Amino acid sequence: MPARLAPDQSRGYLVAIGSGVRGVGETGIFKRLIALVGQRPNIIVLAANPGDDAGVEDLDTRLLANGAGHVQRIVLSARGDSDAPATLNQVERADLVLLCADQPLRLSTLLGGTQLARLLRRRNADGMAIAGLGPGAAILAEHMLAGGAQGPTPRMGSVTLAPGLGLSNRLVIDQGGAGADRLGRLLAALALNPFALGIGIDPDTAAFIGPDNVVDIVGHGGITVVDPADVGHSNVAEAGPAEPISITNLRVHVLVHGARYDLDFRRTIT
Amino acid sequence: MPARLAPDQSRGYLVAIGSGVRGVGETGIFKRLIALVGQRPNIIVLAANPGDDAGVEDLDTRLLANGAGHVQRIVLSARGDSDAPATLNQVERADLVLLCADQPLRLSTLLGGTQLARLLRRRNADGMAIAGLGPGAAILAEHMLAGGAQGPTPRMGSVTLAPGLGLSNRLVIDQGGAGADRLGRLLAALALNPFALGIGIDPDTAAFIGPDNVVDIVGHGGITVVDPADVGHSNVAEAGPAEPISITNLRVHVLVHGARYDLDFRRTIT
Repeated sequence: MPARLAPDQSRGYLVAIGSGVRGVGETGIFKRLIALVGQRPNIIVLAANPGDDAGVEDLDTRLLANGAGHVQRIVLSARGDSDAPATLNQVERADLVLLCADQPLRLSTLLGGTQLARLLRRRNADGMAIAGLGPGAAILAEHMLAGGAQGPTPRMGSVTLAPGLGLSNRLVIDQGGAGADRLGRLLAALALNPFALGIGIDPDTAAFIGPDNVVDIVGHGGITVVDPADVGHSNVAEAGPAEPISITNLRVHVLVHGARYDLDFRRTIT
Repeated sequence: MPARLAPDQSRGYLVAIGSGVRGVGETGIFKRLIALVGQRPNIIVLAANPGDDAGVEDLDTRLLANGAGHVQRIVLSARGDSDAPATLNQVERADLVLLCADQPLRLSTLLGGTQLARLLRRRNADGMAIAGLGPGAAILAEHMLAGGAQGPTPRMGSVTLAPGLGLSNRLVIDQGGAGADRLGRLLAALALNPFALGIGIDPDTAAFIGPDNVVDIVGHGGITVVDPADVGHSNVAEAGPAEPISITNLRVHVLVHGARYDLDFRRTIT
């Protein structure tokens, strides 16, 4: 295998955690997350308001129970909150930032173009880990899967892509839970431009994306990887609004706890 | 392309129609179905009781409106109904049999091992077309996808396979509608033995499987084809009950109206 000398060698981990983590996989995910960033780390939970209260109300307690040294919650209600000096100072000193929201567009509209967004990009490039929980996971990528219709077959207009934080340009992340028919959404997103890899994350499951672009799967469910590298025909340039999209020759993997996937070489590691 | 001289060259069409056909695709699907089997054909609707009344109550009218010459409904309530001489006589003289049920196991328990099942197999081998609507489509295959849990990741025990009518041994058919997360079910089924091809059928969409094993897609939605020919690792032999199944290197196609797929060569035809 070639030596890994990618320019982003030293960036921090990106951790995409599926919606609804609080099942049997949670302890493993949180312990691993915290172990990544050192002894009793200082964690910032960056939440958009209104957030997904059911998922995050006792998040601080759950992180502390799994080894966090200090957890501070910052709630963003308006774009101005993302330029507040106190917030920037806190993020400057954090060991890990965990993004939470009720939906991806809530975070992108509050963060996009702010000093806080630039700071998160710089700190991740310098080595700080950034995690996203549920809808907060989608924004980690350059192209954010903001939502989409249900249904197994992709349709034109059935998916909303929006600019994300841009911490990885290799991925489109779907954190939709069970019953959300993520395949249709991911296919619609990838059909638009098959350069990226689609990653669908089950509830109670996380993808730990290392600085070497190797993904470790942790938790109770699975990760669906959709690789469009060999895509043949697609009708996406001709299909009208709401028409079904055809796309051939996608490669799909379903990976579970303990599996590893190499984003650069697009293959599982055994 | 090699000459097609398969032993089943002269069998009748198999037509798998997704649940809930009665949208904008219905006319195209029914007209094509009826055109396949000749001028003003004699159609038997073979329904299990209790059936999916919402889908089939006016089926006779809809078939007649699209060119059927004669439509007769046979309702099976007990296994003995499948050995009734009158029923066997009607099926012997039909041009097309359309199977309907509220769920696949209803038909398999009423039909399995009966004279009617043997007659359907013989008549299809001799050239008569057989169609299945919704749950009635699943039973066309040798291995019938009888049901399964929702969720995008396959889990051990999350899928029920049962013997079907055995009109094709190349396919596992999932006719689950939108939101049914068919991918997880199909993957769980294929992981058990990756010899078959998985076909997921959208509502208002049909797969016309010709005697030459070429599938024509007709209707408003899409057909998902999951080809496990190149499958790499799977944990299916080791995974415990309810544990997620991993499976790598599946090839997936989403095909829409007008597309054709060759089951023998496992490729799209352009």
